[in-house]
Amino acid sequence: MGSLQSIERLSLNQITTESWSLREAAEGCARAGIPWISPWRHKVAETGLAESRRLIQGAGLRVSSLCRGGMFPAPTAAEREARLEDNKRAVEEAAELGAEVLVLVCGPSPDRDIDRARGWVTEGIEKLVPFAREHGIKLGIEPLHPMQAAERSVVVTLGQANTMAERFEADDVGVIVDVFHVWWDPELYGQIARAGKRILGFHVSDWIVPTPDLVLGRGMMGDGVIEIRRIREAVEAAGYEGPIEVEIFNRAVWDSPGGEVLARMKERYLEHV
Amino acid sequence: MGSLQSIERLSLNQITTESWSLREAAEGCARAGIPWISPWRHKVAETGLAESRRLIQGAGLRVSSLCRGGMFPAPTAAEREARLEDNKRAVEEAAELGAEVLVLVCGPSPDRDIDRARGWVTEGIEKLVPFAREHGIKLGIEPLHPMQAAERSVVVTLGQANTMAERFEADDVGVIVDVFHVWWDPELYGQIARAGKRILGFHVSDWIVPTPDLVLGRGMMGDGVIEIRRIREAVEAAGYEGPIEVEIFNRAVWDSPGGEVLARMKERYLEHV
Repeated sequence: MGSLQSIERLSLNQITTESWSLREAAEGCARAGIPWISPWRHKVAETGLAESRRLIQGAGLRVSSLCRGGMFPAPTAAEREARLEDNKRAVEEAAELGAEVLVLVCGPSPDRDIDRARGWVTEGIEKLVPFAREHGIKLGIEPLHPMQAAERSVVVTLGQANTMAERFEADDVGVIVDVFHVWWDPELYGQIARAGKRILGFHVSDWIVPTPDLVLGRGMMGDGVIEIRRIREAVEAAGYEGPIEVEIFNRAVWDSPGGEVLARMKERYLEHV
Repeated sequence: MGSLQSIERLSLNQITTESWSLREAAEGCARAGIPWISPWRHKVAETGLAESRRLIQGAGLRVSSLCRGGMFPAPTAAEREARLEDNKRAVEEAAELGAEVLVLVCGPSPDRDIDRARGWVTEGIEKLVPFAREHGIKLGIEPLHPMQAAERSVVVTLGQANTMAERFEADDVGVIVDVFHVWWDPELYGQIARAGKRILGFHVSDWIVPTPDLVLGRGMMGDGVIEIRRIREAVEAAGYEGPIEVEIFNRAVWDSPGGEVLARMKERYLEHV
């Protein structure tokens, strides 16, 4: 197993430095020599779309993805239409920022009927695809950890995401592999191979033990139990050679100075990814 | 979809009344007309095995299962041997108490190599089966929720549990379906059908939103989002007609008077299971 020899594929998923504005994140990456960034829409909205683009380009960064579209299920047709409209805005923002991929966090079910909600996800993607294609944006279905099935995503395994993605052209819809969400899955390596060229993104962090929180409990790479390198090598064997995002939801990380977080992130990336 | 018409299959999994001793739980069930109980080993140890048996029989209860064996993975052969010995004691206790099933919570990995730990689980079960068979005890592999993969069980899906169980005779090894652990799984209903006659136990509780804790966050049936009745009917369609255990890890439930918990449990069982 070989370590990565440079940080040329390293991307800051902006949630990792949640306390930073987009300007601070872009400038921080430039200072740290991190070549990629994945902005979040609430940060882009804060700064303004055109200004966000200017800041990212000015810092010499490339955009690995935009986080996030999705959240398709809703109890009424009108509400689902509103979600679709919001996803179209997300596609436009992704195109404007120079991202190739919009990450989809597909959303929870509004009630106990999880199968119906899963159907709404497929419908939502189906309606979004032509618009995304026109804008040159691929949609990346990100399966979330099953512990977030009730609050964030009814798509919870890579196998399920693959099955959904395969309903569409590989140029339009793929999957995002985030080690935190999928590491526990007995079918992980088979599903990574199956995803193949549909892998549109690879996210790293770690699963710390004991796990302090369902959402804010992610660790820096090396602080937990995930076989990150093994998964990275499997993703590469499947054909993915794109950017690798560090995406950490963790209060202690968020409360640390951003420059320190980026320095630790680079070190741990070379050591553990 | 039909509700259950009586509590004749209702079982108190003893963890639901964690503050009660075995005597209190047995007497509580008798008073409440709950015909089944599933004792936990730490409670049996507290009371003594022979006395536990006497109390359960004296209360006129049947034993739906003993919780729990398992915890097979360990870094050295000697430690794994010690775990196996402890499992043999659990089998003896199950037989003494008149249980037909020992529930297996298979254990976490001692390090990052989750596949190797899964191998140790299979090995452990393989070594335990002849002993269990001699004592008339079936082993029920319980897949736990993937959020417990690092701390309690490397067996995390019903599909994985089925694959493990199928290495053995159906009379020796089966699976336990706990709605809390499996409700999120896109393959759930197919895997329940696949398990068929190997289903050795059915546990109910609920997934509350927002989820307050990874371990102590379970709710009373009806307080959450799980399609409990749909799952119960699928389990019955697969051939399971045995006791239904209510197993709730929740501090607020544990701090409530046991009699009230049992009353609420009966009511919710008829309404939601």
